[in-house]
Amino acid sequence: MEQQPDANAQPSKKAAKKAEAKAKKEALKAQRAAERVASQVASVDLEDDPAKDNYGSVKTPTFSPDAEAVELRSLDESHDGKTVVVRAWLQNSRIQSAKMSFVELRKGGNWTIQGLVTATIQGTGAEAQVPSEGPVISRRMVKWIAGIHPESFVAVEAKVQKPIEPVKSCRISGLELHITKCFLLAPAPAMLGMTMAAASQPVVNFSDEEPKAADAEADAQKDAEHAASGGTPAASMLTHLDNIAMHKRAPVQQAIADIRIEVKKLFRSYLEARRFKEFEPPCLIGAASEGGANVFKLAYFGQDAFLAQSPQFYKQFEIAGGRERVFSIGPVFRAENSNTARHMTEFTGLDLEMEIQQDYTEVRATLEGVLLHILRELQVRCADEIEIVRSVYPSEPFLLPEPGKELRLTFAEAQQLLREEGPPEFRNVRDDEDMSTPQEKAVGAVVRAKYKTDFYVIDKFPETARPFYAKVDDSGATVGDGVRVTNAFDFFLRGQEILSGGQRINDPDELEERIRSKGVDPKSPGIKEYLGTFRQVGVPPHGGGGIGLDRVVAWFLALPSVHLTAGYPRTPKRLMP
Amino acid sequence: MEQQPDANAQPSKKAAKKAEAKAKKEALKAQRAAERVASQVASVDLEDDPAKDNYGSVKTPTFSPDAEAVELRSLDESHDGKTVVVRAWLQNSRIQSAKMSFVELRKGGNWTIQGLVTATIQGTGAEAQVPSEGPVISRRMVKWIAGIHPESFVAVEAKVQKPIEPVKSCRISGLELHITKCFLLAPAPAMLGMTMAAASQPVVNFSDEEPKAADAEADAQKDAEHAASGGTPAASMLTHLDNIAMHKRAPVQQAIADIRIEVKKLFRSYLEARRFKEFEPPCLIGAASEGGANVFKLAYFGQDAFLAQSPQFYKQFEIAGGRERVFSIGPVFRAENSNTARHMTEFTGLDLEMEIQQDYTEVRATLEGVLLHILRELQVRCADEIEIVRSVYPSEPFLLPEPGKELRLTFAEAQQLLREEGPPEFRNVRDDEDMSTPQEKAVGAVVRAKYKTDFYVIDKFPETARPFYAKVDDSGATVGDGVRVTNAFDFFLRGQEILSGGQRINDPDELEERIRSKGVDPKSPGIKEYLGTFRQVGVPPHGGGGIGLDRVVAWFLALPSVHLTAGYPRTPKRLMP
Repeated sequence: MEQQPDANAQPSKKAAKKAEAKAKKEALKAQRAAERVASQVASVDLEDDPAKDNYGSVKTPTFSPDAEAVELRSLDESHDGKTVVVRAWLQNSRIQSAKMSFVELRKGGNWTIQGLVTATIQGTGAEAQVPSEGPVISRRMVKWIAGIHPESFVAVEAKVQKPIEPVKSCRISGLELHITKCFLLAPAPAMLGMTMAAASQPVVNFSDEEPKAADAEADAQKDAEHAASGGTPAASMLTHLDNIAMHKRAPVQQAIADIRIEVKKLFRSYLEARRFKEFEPPCLIGAASEGGANVFKLAYFGQDAFLAQSPQFYKQFEIAGGRERVFSIGPVFRAENSNTARHMTEFTGLDLEMEIQQDYTEVRATLEGVLLHILRELQVRCADEIEIVRSVYPSEPFLLPEPGKELRLTFAEAQQLLREEGPPEFRNVRDDEDMSTPQEKAVGAVVRAKYKTDFYVIDKFPETARPFYAKVDDSGATVGDGVRVTNAFDFFLRGQEILSGGQRINDPDELEERIRSKGVDPKSPGIKEYLGTFRQVGVPPHGGGGIGLDRVVAWFLALPSVHLTAGYPRTPKRLMP
Repeated sequence: MEQQPDANAQPSKKAAKKAEAKAKKEALKAQRAAERVASQVASVDLEDDPAKDNYGSVKTPTFSPDAEAVELRSLDESHDGKTVVVRAWLQNSRIQSAKMSFVELRKGGNWTIQGLVTATIQGTGAEAQVPSEGPVISRRMVKWIAGIHPESFVAVEAKVQKPIEPVKSCRISGLELHITKCFLLAPAPAMLGMTMAAASQPVVNFSDEEPKAADAEADAQKDAEHAASGGTPAASMLTHLDNIAMHKRAPVQQAIADIRIEVKKLFRSYLEARRFKEFEPPCLIGAASEGGANVFKLAYFGQDAFLAQSPQFYKQFEIAGGRERVFSIGPVFRAENSNTARHMTEFTGLDLEMEIQQDYTEVRATLEGVLLHILRELQVRCADEIEIVRSVYPSEPFLLPEPGKELRLTFAEAQQLLREEGPPEFRNVRDDEDMSTPQEKAVGAVVRAKYKTDFYVIDKFPETARPFYAKVDDSGATVGDGVRVTNAFDFFLRGQEILSGGQRINDPDELEERIRSKGVDPKSPGIKEYLGTFRQVGVPPHGGGGIGLDRVVAWFLALPSVHLTAGYPRTPKRLMP
């Protein structure tokens, strides 16, 4: 599923150099042309232009009193014939003749509309004939507008009209703007670090290493091939991040960001309707209590502080504190030096924890409920956004189970499926050892083919594969070489894990025994306070789960990397911007 | 407003020692009594008790099939005469006679109800007469229930009935539970580190230093005085945090946590209704770009990382990225060694940023709008919770301005007010120098007396008092010795700052000039990328603000410290739990 540069494509060195040189030459040519226009724009002396009040680079533009300020997304046929003021990004412009220019304006993600400006002053210079009524538009103004750099922010006054033919290149195809005033509020430079066209292509490389010379050559070759086939050069993730504003302006990234927002909203509203209360676990903690290897450490007024790897202990403190059902949405941190499409050092966790009345399946059902709610509602509420993402990153539709037919396999059943129907290398997987990522993906493929679902649960993990707080199944059931199973589960989207959860131990003696059996000292910092809380007050039976927000968005959309779903992805090599 | 131990109260050493000794003796007595009951509970041999299936310490209790599981908060007259199952904290119990015990159950914050259990078996031992129908309750069961330690978690089956007289001590006064089964799901220990009574008293000391011997004596004296006057001993914040579950269970803390949730909800819903989009700024950043002094630094795979002091730059990147109107709710970090009632090293910021159409008053109006919405709605939606908080921390009602009569002073007007109507020590405050915290509080007092409001805005701060990104007023207005004023403001609750905001510079040349004039190198790490973004793409006019969530909750409720509003307050000395 991961989109990576084809490792087999070995361009000849000569071809690569040639392509690189050509690319450089073209870039230089484009830059010079842009600079030429820019200098023209800058050098326009507006003083003797009868249209001078209707355009230019100004901080506080003035418009006709009867012009209504509208957002592009709100424009509809009711505006036909009306004069409006629109603030937007100018994403394209071209001069048609000395008397007419076209522009393309964009706002609100991907709401685009065509604008045109036509000179109303006959002739030029001393012989110019200014119209006695109606808009005053000079040829200089027409030319000036055509010279505005793409991605500048403008405010235009315009009459809304229906075009003769629908403007296919714009989302608002049934209306166009006949521009009468145009002010440049924030100019873009002549050369963008990444054009909107490039920003709207799939990212070609997610490595956060600076490219080596050989890779740069390969990239140049790739770009040249792409350009030769009529395509637009695409950019690496590094280039996207170095041009963060352009990265964000691309409709595909706007759509991903909007889908991300909706996932959080759906998570929150589903839980609030079921009496869950939000809380904020701390990021700064006094002990690396869940294992010290992957935790960030910092100096803190003469002691050490650590960044929380999960809100696990704090969710349980909330339960001990009588909060009954809680959830949190916030950052968690992993100091893993993993440069993969699945990892970031900072990501957003969607967590919940709840008292159990009868047994742990209440927790599993709540988590299944919230995830199915999210996955189903996304397809309804974000249909447009999903389509935009698919137009850049094509993917198979996400297969959801029919209501009441959710798929739940035990860990042992999943391993059996893998042995019997998976690829040959997994013929000998064991029921008492944790799954690897390739195994998980293989299970996902078998499940999709057999059960027609991209969402499923693997339950009853062996205790060897779970942390000390996982509750062992009271029935005494075992797998493999007598390993006990737990009331703990993982959830999967398209064969990739997005949630871990289960029942937690609430009996302090049982908890201490499990802490010891995992080789942890019950008196070590953090553990002592954690275990102590269970002894201090008595804690009712409870369970919960943690969802990786970035992964839910990425795998639902079948994106090549979680780095596309975070606003500012953090990787071991990258902390900017 | 800050509630602190009275520094003038110097107890005699002798009195303190006496009080301490007495307190120790009483604690020991209580512990022995509790242990006695506990050993009785543990030693009960249920085998020969005809009621043995109806009580005890069990993991999976069984109830009558027709008993409905209900939450205390949902109990009403419609349940009268019905059999229900209730899971709750047992907060009190007492034996009335050999045949009858009373308990007080609590759930859902402060929903309390009285339960009673009456023996139905006549006689004891071999002569016991078990009733042929109805509940089977032995005297041993009655005694066992009375011996359950306070704050244990129990599940009871009971018949709901109206009491002869309303039970004044319980929130659900019109119903009581006639218990027929009682199971102990999670026992509390015989001695709690902090009782519910103590947890429900105002916190007496917010210092995060371990108490010195002298202070401990003073505390003992204070406690003794308190007890002598019929009151309950109160605890320090350290004791509260060492007993985090009891701290959280106290109704006052539940109410504060619920009000905090509502503030976040109101902030979010108000903004979402106005097309603001949530985003997540990173916590880990690559440069201490807003000034290095108060920033936490950590080792990050061979480079340095820092914890974000605010989402300022990232909010602006969102605007540059065409997101138009954004907000964020998340943690921010300050490495300030400040041990005050206003400071924490980690707190929650409510931030927003928006494009400006005409001028910066749009931003000010949006921020005023969202805060007034929060403050007004809290009084409606959280009336019960506010009452609970006031019963522990008494306060004057919060005075809100009438709609349309919001108070906005310029910085110069506020300073003039302080000179003319404030305390004598502020007779000479200047219009071109920032206010101190005591000055702010003094302004708050004058404003409350004069304008009858606890919420107001101070606008047009001098540029000397604002960071480099604050936009200077284009009119050229100055104060004091020719210092220019900015389009930047602070908001205040009860004389304490809770928000900073204003218009940001969007012109890269203007921004660079201001960065330089503040003595910052425009090429320094972080600043370079920040400034670069404005040059890279063009950014429309915009502004925003940041609100301290903890302060809004604390000062709205007139609490003595923000440490009471955070789930897990972080101070320079304290990272546990």
